[in-house]
Amino acid sequence: MTATIRVERDGPIATVVLDRPEKLNALTRAMWGQLGETIDALSADDALRCIVLRGAGERAFSPGNDIGEFATERSDKAQAAAYGKVMHRTIASLARCRHPLVAQIHGICVGGGMEIAALCDLRICGEGSRFGAPIKNLGLVMAYAEMEPLVRLVGPAVALEMLLEGRVFDAAEALAKGLVTRVVPDADVAAEARATALRVAEGAPLVARWHKKFARRLGQGTPLSDDERDECFDCFDTEDFRIGYAAFLAKRKPAFVGR
Amino acid sequence: MTATIRVERDGPIATVVLDRPEKLNALTRAMWGQLGETIDALSADDALRCIVLRGAGERAFSPGNDIGEFATERSDKAQAAAYGKVMHRTIASLARCRHPLVAQIHGICVGGGMEIAALCDLRICGEGSRFGAPIKNLGLVMAYAEMEPLVRLVGPAVALEMLLEGRVFDAAEALAKGLVTRVVPDADVAAEARATALRVAEGAPLVARWHKKFARRLGQGTPLSDDERDECFDCFDTEDFRIGYAAFLAKRKPAFVGR
Amino acid sequence: MTATIRVERDGPIATVVLDRPEKLNALTRAMWGQLGETIDALSADDALRCIVLRGAGERAFSPGNDIGEFATERSDKAQAAAYGKVMHRTIASLARCRHPLVAQIHGICVGGGMEIAALCDLRICGEGSRFGAPIKNLGLVMAYAEMEPLVRLVGPAVALEMLLEGRVFDAAEALAKGLVTRVVPDADVAAEARATALRVAEGAPLVARWHKKFARRLGQGTPLSDDERDECFDCFDTEDFRIGYAAFLAKRKPAFVGR
Repeated sequence: MTATIRVERDGPIATVVLDRPEKLNALTRAMWGQLGETIDALSADDALRCIVLRGAGERAFSPGNDIGEFATERSDKAQAAAYGKVMHRTIASLARCRHPLVAQIHGICVGGGMEIAALCDLRICGEGSRFGAPIKNLGLVMAYAEMEPLVRLVGPAVALEMLLEGRVFDAAEALAKGLVTRVVPDADVAAEARATALRVAEGAPLVARWHKKFARRLGQGTPLSDDERDECFDCFDTEDFRIGYAAFLAKRKPAFVGR
Repeated sequence: MTATIRVERDGPIATVVLDRPEKLNALTRAMWGQLGETIDALSADDALRCIVLRGAGERAFSPGNDIGEFATERSDKAQAAAYGKVMHRTIASLARCRHPLVAQIHGICVGGGMEIAALCDLRICGEGSRFGAPIKNLGLVMAYAEMEPLVRLVGPAVALEMLLEGRVFDAAEALAKGLVTRVVPDADVAAEARATALRVAEGAPLVARWHKKFARRLGQGTPLSDDERDECFDCFDTEDFRIGYAAFLAKRKPAFVGR
Repeated sequence: MTATIRVERDGPIATVVLDRPEKLNALTRAMWGQLGETIDALSADDALRCIVLRGAGERAFSPGNDIGEFATERSDKAQAAAYGKVMHRTIASLARCRHPLVAQIHGICVGGGMEIAALCDLRICGEGSRFGAPIKNLGLVMAYAEMEPLVRLVGPAVALEMLLEGRVFDAAEALAKGLVTRVVPDADVAAEARATALRVAEGAPLVARWHKKFARRLGQGTPLSDDERDECFDCFDTEDFRIGYAAFLAKRKPAFVGR
């Protein structure tokens, strides 16, 4: 099996590349599986502080699932359920990833590609990027597992608008809809994604993990226990708090150690 | 009883008209009741693919409940509760309508009128449209049944801002608040609402119903069963998936049959 | 102990001032405690209709918790938990305050200051205001009690963006993020906050309290009882409904009495 998910490592920042540029990074079942395994492995790595997720090349993040595979992998309900299990396991991996995820979006970001971007914590795209989920034209339904993160990101009304109309829209509309964090000129996407990853990675890494954990927990909507409520105070006994506090007093940048 | 809710039918698209132009389509208790019955009947019609909801004329969608009726229909708590039952039954009908609802908003869209629009899935308005819920000036409270869809649409902070300040505001602010989907020049409202309804109606109708169902279900916030999670795969056994897939490969528009 | 929370009273409108201008109104443990007690007392006062919350001077609402206190009050987990109890009790007081709260924001509104503003119902700021929560640079975590209102206001994605990147950003971005209600020229902040408070105070006060109660209740996400659903009809038996209805018919401004 050819590797279609590539990982580049630069100190505490890993870049995960959807690497199938000849097909604009259209997602195969194998890619979904590899993406999930890759994210699980990176999530477990305590030396990491931020993951950038991008497509190979600058024409597309991803246009979604490769329709060429439908004849053999998604031709009926049983096949689709098997394919769906792989996709949804990867969605769960992205959702529970301990490290902040930055989507670096060049060009097309549609369907399953947009779903992956929606599962990242920050989304940087170019002015020429395009978004949408036109699956109503294929007669296909977005699964609960895929719709839930989209609804969490843009709200139920915008998610439903996207699905009912099936329009593909531009970056300015994506920003207005809350679907992306920030739009920059196309030539600046890589630099801004890098700057964003550095901003994240310069912060205390345990703090980033706590904030991700807390945001996820609040999304469950169930009552918090007293122990959960008190977890926020654990940071005051970390080495990184000493470092951050000393750096603040000395008016210099802190160099956190992740302990 | 005069019919004040009128239905026009154009193939798979029905247009429901709040039809009391001499009062800018102010809502009576009878109109609320007829609107609910109308929506229930249309919701049950499998031949339909989209419902457009509008006021008669181009001066108003609706300014809300007719205050002329207050003396006889809402003069105290007991009467108001009886009136409220009718309103809230209709709100429930709109909320569970199986077909996508497009609000075509000309001019004033305030109070109960805005509540009806907020229950639609897509809201197209003109630059001259105006919105708000100034009931604090009447000493009146928005019921939970009415506030819930508004909060779902614009969030609790914007909903409360609208109720506490009671301002009537313009279309640009409504768009920024997420209260409308799209603003167009006043002269283009009908055409854009029609184009929107066509975009919806051209999609696979079962898919639209599934997406509405899923969005509603996610709004309940309770855990999904495995059977519910697997419902998304049913579409792969529909005739419309074969049609959509074949049309995609042939690069032509699909002509869905709703099976 | 010096009073650092000051209350000014102007009829039905109270102004609560974070009053430590020599430190840009940086919050001490004592201030958090006094703020909570002040809000509890004002909340119980039936003669009140609106509370404006502001910092002393026009340079800052508040830059957050005074880091000068960290050495003695928040140097480890045990101290931080004791400090946190005070903060979180005040957060609960702000969240359950019966009267509408308007934040009048001049200049810096960061960290704990931004958290207080996020707990107000309406946020008026100037074009030069600045916002953010850069605590990741200190190695500190935002508690669930503080994050929950922020997530409710701006959604989980924007809240997490703020915490992971730690950027301090301007008023235009705060508006786009839904973090503030309205941005006006810096010289107009006091006048617009005042006008907002008057708009609120001119409405029926019981109605404002009901709307706040209902919004809070809907935020809990649990099913409503029939009695709760019927509470909206109580207003029809109030004196203020008679007053509002008569004023509407006479086309004059109502003078509500709060009964």
